[in-house]
Amino acid sequence: MYRKVLVANRGEIAVRVIRVLKELGIRSVAIYSEADANSLHVKLADEAVCVGGPMPVASYLNERNILSAAVLTGAEAIHPGFGFLSESSEFAQMCGECHIDFIGPTPETIALMGDKAKARQTMHAHDIPVIPGSIGTVATLAEAAKIAETAGYPVLLKAAAGGGGKGIRRVNSKEELTTAFQDATREAKGAFNDSAMYLEKIIAPAKHVEVQIFRDQFGNGVYFPERDCSLQRNHQKVLEETPCPVLTPEERTYLGQTALKAAEAIDYKNTGTVEFLMDQAHHFYFMEMNTRIQVEHPITEMVTGVDLVKAQILVAAGQNLPFMQADVALNGYALECRINAEDPENNFRPSAGHIDYLYLPTGGVGIRIDSGVYSGGDVSPYYDSMIAKLITHGQTRLEAIARMRRILEELDLEGIHSNSDFQRALLDDPNYLTGKTNNSYIERYFLKNYLKERVNKEAHHVSLQEKFIR
Amino acid sequence: MYRKVLVANRGEIAVRVIRVLKELGIRSVAIYSEADANSLHVKLADEAVCVGGPMPVASYLNERNILSAAVLTGAEAIHPGFGFLSESSEFAQMCGECHIDFIGPTPETIALMGDKAKARQTMHAHDIPVIPGSIGTVATLAEAAKIAETAGYPVLLKAAAGGGGKGIRRVNSKEELTTAFQDATREAKGAFNDSAMYLEKIIAPAKHVEVQIFRDQFGNGVYFPERDCSLQRNHQKVLEETPCPVLTPEERTYLGQTALKAAEAIDYKNTGTVEFLMDQAHHFYFMEMNTRIQVEHPITEMVTGVDLVKAQILVAAGQNLPFMQADVALNGYALECRINAEDPENNFRPSAGHIDYLYLPTGGVGIRIDSGVYSGGDVSPYYDSMIAKLITHGQTRLEAIARMRRILEELDLEGIHSNSDFQRALLDDPNYLTGKTNNSYIERYFLKNYLKERVNKEAHHVSLQEKFIR
Repeated sequence: MYRKVLVANRGEIAVRVIRVLKELGIRSVAIYSEADANSLHVKLADEAVCVGGPMPVASYLNERNILSAAVLTGAEAIHPGFGFLSESSEFAQMCGECHIDFIGPTPETIALMGDKAKARQTMHAHDIPVIPGSIGTVATLAEAAKIAETAGYPVLLKAAAGGGGKGIRRVNSKEELTTAFQDATREAKGAFNDSAMYLEKIIAPAKHVEVQIFRDQFGNGVYFPERDCSLQRNHQKVLEETPCPVLTPEERTYLGQTALKAAEAIDYKNTGTVEFLMDQAHHFYFMEMNTRIQVEHPITEMVTGVDLVKAQILVAAGQNLPFMQADVALNGYALECRINAEDPENNFRPSAGHIDYLYLPTGGVGIRIDSGVYSGGDVSPYYDSMIAKLITHGQTRLEAIARMRRILEELDLEGIHSNSDFQRALLDDPNYLTGKTNNSYIERYFLKNYLKERVNKEAHHVSLQEKFIR
Repeated sequence: MYRKVLVANRGEIAVRVIRVLKELGIRSVAIYSEADANSLHVKLADEAVCVGGPMPVASYLNERNILSAAVLTGAEAIHPGFGFLSESSEFAQMCGECHIDFIGPTPETIALMGDKAKARQTMHAHDIPVIPGSIGTVATLAEAAKIAETAGYPVLLKAAAGGGGKGIRRVNSKEELTTAFQDATREAKGAFNDSAMYLEKIIAPAKHVEVQIFRDQFGNGVYFPERDCSLQRNHQKVLEETPCPVLTPEERTYLGQTALKAAEAIDYKNTGTVEFLMDQAHHFYFMEMNTRIQVEHPITEMVTGVDLVKAQILVAAGQNLPFMQADVALNGYALECRINAEDPENNFRPSAGHIDYLYLPTGGVGIRIDSGVYSGGDVSPYYDSMIAKLITHGQTRLEAIARMRRILEELDLEGIHSNSDFQRALLDDPNYLTGKTNNSYIERYFLKNYLKERVNKEAHHVSLQEKFIR
């Protein structure tokens, strides 16, 4: 087992990993930017190394400085968390060259799943259902037209090397294709120096349903109950749950087995998540694979009782997967509300600043709160606005929802804005309660009503602000 | 279902009950003393009524004022928590006379189990093994001598109406009996106006092993996996765990069935705990029954997934028990460390005062923290010093222990003293780790070494005190 591990991340996920390292008796090394010297992850780690300035590219994306920190402190492995370098095959490769274990899949696997066109092609070759469209890239406009005709409009043209929404065009009909193809190709060439495009039918309305899998180097593998992450805003997940409330047990088993088959096809190591779209007829389509731990992993832990981050470390260190398929049976329901430092009433503008007071309503059955901040600390403007995750579990979905409502009402976060009232309102939404949501539900429907009601009504949230004495 | 329930308690257990009421959609009424106006349970409840002055007898034991508050606010039921009026058959009776449900067993059951001699006698009559000694009270010295001879010295003479350590004498040999009997009888007469005595053999070394049971009015009943509460100081439990690490599955089943049989014998309603002593040969002896929810109930919730407080309310309202025996199977291990506002290095002197800063290390798998205080609040000198319960769960006992060590190290409580370092040291004790403890282990062995080591060594606890910015 490792004696020392460096955590190449910050915030809530760095805290989460450091805590697991402590529980395993492994020394932890935090890295931090100049803006993060007083962050919780720095305070909790056994050692901490400043790796650069506040901008991510200077610190949390600074591969050389991070590797230097690992070498200097004698860390034997690096846990990348999510975001930042977690899906950089280059960084995983560099770790290997420095004889440091990268806690995740191989650089080759990361590269393969990072190329979205190649990932599609690979999955299709292994009989995993993919969204109708091109198998691999489309070389010419004529080829694109032929494939779009077969798949059926509307379609999406996407840059194979894409990311950040660049080189993507929605095409509603044959007439729009020529211009869209030329524009997207040009944009992709400019952004990524790679004009290769692929094409997918647009599945809408669709639910975002994903399956976490875990495999060790001995070929043992398991899949976990699926997560429904349909509630998104601006391509960010807002409220996740497991299991998906509209799936049958048979669909659950099929989806899990399909995800595990996908992982086996590429001899995947460690944990990862296969993301699917589900249409109204409950057909599933492979969307992409995330080759890292995910933000929403705690809900899976709540319904199965396993510690996924601990398992990541054990498996990376060469141990057997610490659970088998029968050990991860679904038990109850779990939800996660991401608490972001943002102002929903001002277009979700990030709200950095000093946390004057923080009350996290821990306590009672089925409650878990993973947070990267503390009362009296600061929320930095340089990074992601997600500062805490409220997670509840119940024997039934309604019990988990009742618990989440309760802790959202008790949460007291002063000095900055947060989306807790927004989350609270979402939990009262009739379509949410019946599971009738899809991946554009928040932006197309819920948000408008929410903002309208906020003008006419008192806040749902009964603030404890005035009640607490400081 | 009830629309409104009054919680006749304070602190952590009042907070726990109020939260369950919220999750059930039931309005909650807190009561508070003049010293508790800013307490967490008052802030969280929907309504709050001041019932008297700071002294318990003026407020939390003031039956008439509490019942007036219930009637005035229209509460349909009262949850008594633990301590205070929770085991007062008189109060339960008065609730009934006011047509208010007492959330607990009947006044008759409370009275029967409250009379320790009668409880022994009843259990013996139903073939529940009791500690060797008198069946019922002993009328004369001659009778006491005869019974003590049969049971074997040393024995305990106890006042049947006893409590608070009054009217109790340890008798090591026949020679000591006469004086002890006369002294104890006189003391009992003075303290309780009742000189009735009973006699029990002293079981030592013994483990304190207890079984929580739950029965509804339809005769459905379950028992839960046993809790080992051997680690006590001054007759107060310090660190509890479930299951008992030295029991076999067969012993577990036998003990559970015995406890349920005891509850059935007295047609017990709602939840209660049957406490046993276990000698070195693993013989179990009925000690007493607590007719209320217990401080340590969360560890049972952690290993079974049920919500005992929620079930108390549902069953009191006339519903079926929401789980059956098969639903409460043992899953993993759980521990609870009671965090008291006290100073272990000054003979555990209570440490009331202002909480300047509180960081509760919520987060990660298998962590639960039930607390009745908040950062910036106060710990009152008038009441019990228990202010928070740290509860951890693991797939194995060692995993649960590793998690507890981690959160004890992260816990930051400033402004008052607490026993967190003491708890942390206990978790490193070799005899604790191997389960070789008994109900006098802390006072006879551990405490001496702990105090000695504290003088010679740095604190185990790595304080985060200087790390946090306020």
